[in-house]
Amino acid sequence: MSSKNKTEVLIGGNIITLGGYESEEYLQKVATYINNKIAEFKKVESYNHQSKENKSLLLELNIADDYFKAKKQVEMVEEELAEKDKELYELKHELIGVQIKLETAEKTLLDMRRDSTEYQKRIVKLETEMIEKNKKQTGKNVMQGKRSDI
Amino acid sequence: MSSKNKTEVLIGGNIITLGGYESEEYLQKVATYINNKIAEFKKVESYNHQSKENKSLLLELNIADDYFKAKKQVEMVEEELAEKDKELYELKHELIGVQIKLETAEKTLLDMRRDSTEYQKRIVKLETEMIEKNKKQTGKNVMQGKRSDI
Repeated sequence: MSSKNKTEVLIGGNIITLGGYESEEYLQKVATYINNKIAEFKKVESYNHQSKENKSLLLELNIADDYFKAKKQVEMVEEELAEKDKELYELKHELIGVQIKLETAEKTLLDMRRDSTEYQKRIVKLETEMIEKNKKQTGKNVMQGKRSDI
Repeated sequence: MSSKNKTEVLIGGNIITLGGYESEEYLQKVATYINNKIAEFKKVESYNHQSKENKSLLLELNIADDYFKAKKQVEMVEEELAEKDKELYELKHELIGVQIKLETAEKTLLDMRRDSTEYQKRIVKLETEMIEKNKKQTGKNVMQGKRSDI
């Protein structure tokens, strides 16, 4: 839990003491940002001729403009995020669909392999029987003198 | 292309004329935001006793703080976006992998169905031959008086 602390910052030549929950590091960062803006403004001739009040107003408007642009960026990235979420959702559903089809195909393959093995066994059995029958028949033919070379 | 225009805005009781590329609507929005802040500050007793300079400083710091917090939000949302992109990438690759497996399984199924049909035809052929052979054999047995009731 952060505690209240006091930090002195120098902004545009004025020292101000701030009390709050933000760290000294953060407050110095913000002060530097503002001082940099003032330095940029001072490069513009017309700025230097403005009243103190107007200078403050210009500074406030400029910083506020940075703020609004950052807010706009948040909106845009959040929109992108929502689109990605939608894409993810649809992709996940597509994946599930294909996985189910694969499961079904693999199950069918298993059944077909089993059937195939049974067919092959049946064929071997029938062919073996056939050979046996043919042997017996040939044997009989020999015994009954149906072969000319006996 | 936006043209330069001049807009008058009222901020904290002061009128300032702004020339720039932003729309009047936008400038008024920013002015309203700043005026709302001033109104909030005025509710705080200690603020009202500050010098004009300090009041400006406080305002500038407060707006800058909004800006830095919005920047932080942009960072966080962009990190989320990067994670979603990574998730999408991995999901797409997973999907491709499963689709390839499905294609392979379906091709194998096709081949197995073809083989299966061939096996079944072979079996029918063999069984038919077997039946024919059995008929002929029974016929011979009858003719050779092997059946006792003839």
